[in-house]
Amino acid sequence: MMRATEIIMKKRLGQELTTEEIYTFVVGATNGSFEDYQLSALLMAICLNGMTDRETVDLTMAMAYSGSILDLSAIPGAKVDKHSTGGVGDTTTLIAAPLAAACGAKVAKMSGRGLGFTGGTLDKLESIPGMRIDLSKERFIQQVKEIGIAVIGQTAELAPADKTLYALRDVTATVDSLPLVTSSILSKKIAAGCDAVVLDVKTGTGAVMPTAELSVKLAETMVRIGSLTGRRFSALVTDMNQPLGLYVGNALEVKEAVDALSGRAEGPLLDVSLQLAAQMIRTSGLAATTQEALVRLRAKLDSGEGLKKLAEMIKAQGGDPRVTQDTGLLPQAEKIIPLPAAEGGFVAAMKTSDIGYAAQALGAGRVKKTDNIDPAVGLVMKKRLGEPIEKGEPWCELHVNPGSDVEEATRMLESALAVSREPAPVPSLVHAVIE
Amino acid sequence: MMRATEIIMKKRLGQELTTEEIYTFVVGATNGSFEDYQLSALLMAICLNGMTDRETVDLTMAMAYSGSILDLSAIPGAKVDKHSTGGVGDTTTLIAAPLAAACGAKVAKMSGRGLGFTGGTLDKLESIPGMRIDLSKERFIQQVKEIGIAVIGQTAELAPADKTLYALRDVTATVDSLPLVTSSILSKKIAAGCDAVVLDVKTGTGAVMPTAELSVKLAETMVRIGSLTGRRFSALVTDMNQPLGLYVGNALEVKEAVDALSGRAEGPLLDVSLQLAAQMIRTSGLAATTQEALVRLRAKLDSGEGLKKLAEMIKAQGGDPRVTQDTGLLPQAEKIIPLPAAEGGFVAAMKTSDIGYAAQALGAGRVKKTDNIDPAVGLVMKKRLGEPIEKGEPWCELHVNPGSDVEEATRMLESALAVSREPAPVPSLVHAVIE
Repeated sequence: MMRATEIIMKKRLGQELTTEEIYTFVVGATNGSFEDYQLSALLMAICLNGMTDRETVDLTMAMAYSGSILDLSAIPGAKVDKHSTGGVGDTTTLIAAPLAAACGAKVAKMSGRGLGFTGGTLDKLESIPGMRIDLSKERFIQQVKEIGIAVIGQTAELAPADKTLYALRDVTATVDSLPLVTSSILSKKIAAGCDAVVLDVKTGTGAVMPTAELSVKLAETMVRIGSLTGRRFSALVTDMNQPLGLYVGNALEVKEAVDALSGRAEGPLLDVSLQLAAQMIRTSGLAATTQEALVRLRAKLDSGEGLKKLAEMIKAQGGDPRVTQDTGLLPQAEKIIPLPAAEGGFVAAMKTSDIGYAAQALGAGRVKKTDNIDPAVGLVMKKRLGEPIEKGEPWCELHVNPGSDVEEATRMLESALAVSREPAPVPSLVHAVIE
Repeated sequence: MMRATEIIMKKRLGQELTTEEIYTFVVGATNGSFEDYQLSALLMAICLNGMTDRETVDLTMAMAYSGSILDLSAIPGAKVDKHSTGGVGDTTTLIAAPLAAACGAKVAKMSGRGLGFTGGTLDKLESIPGMRIDLSKERFIQQVKEIGIAVIGQTAELAPADKTLYALRDVTATVDSLPLVTSSILSKKIAAGCDAVVLDVKTGTGAVMPTAELSVKLAETMVRIGSLTGRRFSALVTDMNQPLGLYVGNALEVKEAVDALSGRAEGPLLDVSLQLAAQMIRTSGLAATTQEALVRLRAKLDSGEGLKKLAEMIKAQGGDPRVTQDTGLLPQAEKIIPLPAAEGGFVAAMKTSDIGYAAQALGAGRVKKTDNIDPAVGLVMKKRLGEPIEKGEPWCELHVNPGSDVEEATRMLESALAVSREPAPVPSLVHAVIE
């Protein structure tokens, strides 16, 4: 008890905690010897007084080692993972990972579920009939060895300290702190055993950090701290001032990924996915430059080998690979309702978080962790920022089932859209690349 | 839940909380709708980002009104209370309160117990055979009406929010914050129903605030905030770089108070007690100036009316008033052990908190709230700061019983004392008066 208050007081006074003090705190969070109210006081002191790089590295490693570290050494070569801070219509994993694997990368990826307004890769994968994301460690490693790609759920023993601390941060207004976000994300990636990690840090009206400046700072911090742990890290800061793709919802996003890998859907989603895949290739040591990686990735896209790799992964994990040829085999919503624009002009703003919450209201996301989701429902956006729009023209389609709260979704969507007389400036897609 | 995190985030960002937000937080602390970990995150944010006077007044009143407010209106005239932030050998209440009552003040005082290294008035009073401190509200009010003085324990319903918040602050390193200390002390005094309150803020090696500057700032803040609540407040900042009196322990301190009221013991304890009593008289409106009050108090001391008032109070609360004539009737320790100085020179420093902990080790204080204390044991100091001391000369006497940990007490006392070759400067007794 004495020890806990000493550590809290030290950080309250803005002093640097020793390695031993940080491990004491993280072990305390894991085994309960620090009480929740002590952890939250320390988290608030960290939010307000910050941490040095040395402290953040220690915090990251202490959290990674609070559970078991996955041993991927049986897979030859560099193992690569990617991580997104969470977005809407953000299906990059299902496009970037198969393309990178088609180029020879070993993609050993652990993903999360959607919560709040953001989607989760696991939920998207589970909309594919038969698909399993709960592989054993042995099967996971075997699959990466054989076909170069596997995407599964995080196991419970992965960085358990982060689970405790994240749950507390969520209810004590201590989420958006550079050392806390950094250590939370990196500890899980390090525990997942990869040698290289590509981070996609979102910025805009649906991002963990409130400003572009802070998002770039977060990306820089994560790459710097990540490199200090001895792994290869790189990061993109990408725009989330509108949904990245045009599809929001689980089966809908799988369809959009298949369309992109089939060459039927150019646009921001594919562009960001290629940039992420290029970083995965480069940090894996398979290409000297991002440019070289992009050329090879384009070739794999054009030849259909990326799509083929996705089909292989789906088959290996028990899913029906025919969805990659016929997206009609994916769950479909019963009804499609177009949403007309209340006024004409140019699309000036889309509050991305509200679009995510609208999809959630239809049944595509969870309010509580234990909620069920409906894989078929969601939104298809018909307009992007800066485009002209006429009064009464549908700017969005709601894909709904009987359980969908159409009224609530419509209300949120209408408040999310802003239309202007003159075209507003369109934010760039990639704000920063940190290698 | 949402509401709690919004309030925490606002204070985390350094913004001013509204009156409604502060009441939401305090009601949440009282009824459990705010979780402990949310309260401690907010307390840390308050420690680091502070509060405006308006917020501190709201916090004080919200905490005072978290339970019932004692209605003392049946007692005619201004009711006065005093409060000390806690010291060692600090028996001022038993001297100042009877003297002020002898001058006509209505002293309706609620006291606390000792915890840690500081003593508590209730424990001292209970060392008097038969003395009761658990009077009903009705008897408490009746006694103040009849004889002008009563000292009882705080009732459980007094500012219950403070109980919750103080317990959390103690284990989350958030004790020494100006708005939190201020609201904690003032809310209890306001709930206790008095019109005027005299504060004794200690400073030195055994005080809540680490520096004299911060102690003065705390006293100024409490008087300013207290006045904003519509009560009359004044404060002294007094020295705690050594025990105030020469006696440390419960019955021992009652003896010293009786000695002082009998005119047998001049010195710092009597001086501070007279200053506090003078403020009690002045804030009660019974004297125009402190100087006038001091003249009247001296007269009551010399005439023995102060001692008589103490005897009246003891009798009214079931105790044996003969202790005011014969202190031999108080509990006595079995053995007295003199502690010789290890080297000669001048007394340069006495770590007051360690002297308090030494008395605790002998059985005079509690480690846990539920511990029993021994009223007879304690220390009698033979030297004060600046005085010459010879090697082997006893500088302190241990009054011990079979349950006393003499070894631990001796160890703490020896480390508490510093002796120098040349006389060191002696700190002044009263650092500041804030009226």
